[in-house]
Amino acid sequence: MAQATQVRQGLNPQAQKLSIIVSKGSLDMAYPAFMLANAGAAMGMEVHLFFTFWGMAVINKRQEANLQVGPDASPGMTTAAVRDAVARLKLPTIPEMVAGAKDMGVHLHACSTTLEMMGMRKDDLVPEVEDIVGASTFLQLSENGQTLFI
Amino acid sequence: MAQATQVRQGLNPQAQKLSIIVSKGSLDMAYPAFMLANAGAAMGMEVHLFFTFWGMAVINKRQEANLQVGPDASPGMTTAAVRDAVARLKLPTIPEMVAGAKDMGVHLHACSTTLEMMGMRKDDLVPEVEDIVGASTFLQLSENGQTLFI
Amino acid sequence: MAQATQVRQGLNPQAQKLSIIVSKGSLDMAYPAFMLANAGAAMGMEVHLFFTFWGMAVINKRQEANLQVGPDASPGMTTAAVRDAVARLKLPTIPEMVAGAKDMGVHLHACSTTLEMMGMRKDDLVPEVEDIVGASTFLQLSENGQTLFI
Repeated sequence: MAQATQVRQGLNPQAQKLSIIVSKGSLDMAYPAFMLANAGAAMGMEVHLFFTFWGMAVINKRQEANLQVGPDASPGMTTAAVRDAVARLKLPTIPEMVAGAKDMGVHLHACSTTLEMMGMRKDDLVPEVEDIVGASTFLQLSENGQTLFI
Repeated sequence: MAQATQVRQGLNPQAQKLSIIVSKGSLDMAYPAFMLANAGAAMGMEVHLFFTFWGMAVINKRQEANLQVGPDASPGMTTAAVRDAVARLKLPTIPEMVAGAKDMGVHLHACSTTLEMMGMRKDDLVPEVEDIVGASTFLQLSENGQTLFI
Repeated sequence: MAQATQVRQGLNPQAQKLSIIVSKGSLDMAYPAFMLANAGAAMGMEVHLFFTFWGMAVINKRQEANLQVGPDASPGMTTAAVRDAVARLKLPTIPEMVAGAKDMGVHLHACSTTLEMMGMRKDDLVPEVEDIVGASTFLQLSENGQTLFI
């Protein structure tokens, strides 16, 4: 707690916001998104996640717990191998990461255009999702911070 | 118009610039690049797109209209399915997105090293491309703004 | 030298830092990471590279010189074709890029969680790697700058 406060004081206003556009639906790209988001939140940063395109899978009720390793994986690093490593290191699963993010105050936004393209509704998304917004709203939310596209 | 002005006033100088490095040549990654670029331009932001590596396909005269869905796509989301969704939602096609970006003042830059690597010339690129620059020039253009790597 | 100084004076404090999260282990994504990093360093910027997930291959002693083209490549652009183009343009190889980065003062950081997940140790990494840090430390290092996720 003392450390978090110290870190927060060390940051200038620009650095206190972290926004991440989550465009991939793979297990291996969901992890960096939540590891960075949750580390930022633990440091006292304001954090926004914007799920768009294939990233919608990460907050899809029926897919959240079953993400698979994507095309960038090293040979031999299968979904099972990643899940084994996650269990061995006692890292949270993706559903636990999502719940943990919400608990720490991370804001989860779903992209309105993507929902329409995929014929999905808010009801198809995990309850941690705060709202459905467009690209313009996201750009406003992320202003004056750092933004990553994953 | 009143809304755009209000948004612009709400942004600080840092946030008024958005730069996007477009490194992928797929239909599904070209869309987020232009949706963000064009949303930013509509909000009054200065926007720069830097096409590099596989992203050169997006501004290649012979490929711009024929981009295919890339390796990150969800199973079942084929190029035809994405094009159908785009048509159903009356979203612009990629060539329309490129033309619209130019109309809104978005700056399109092609990476000089990539052009050389691919044995291409300015004449191979769509006319909306403003200039051919290297990484150093792009870093200078994007300073004091937000930069995304797609 | 005079030009580098001029550029440096033109940058504000925010823009003088560039941080890149290297999450892919492919030849074609390692190049943009180092081209941007080394261009930034040549301009006088403080540059941090954070190797995580599949990006660990880039700084793995046994893999650094043998990276392959990844899934985003255009049809026909094989590993051999990229290596040929690199040789034709007299661009540095990846090991040369890594050594050059270090020489120019770029900071190379390895992700502690990824090392644990992959059962690797500092000894498995190229000597240019400066330290092994977690996501929180990286977020602190990158504050007040621009950060890209590749």
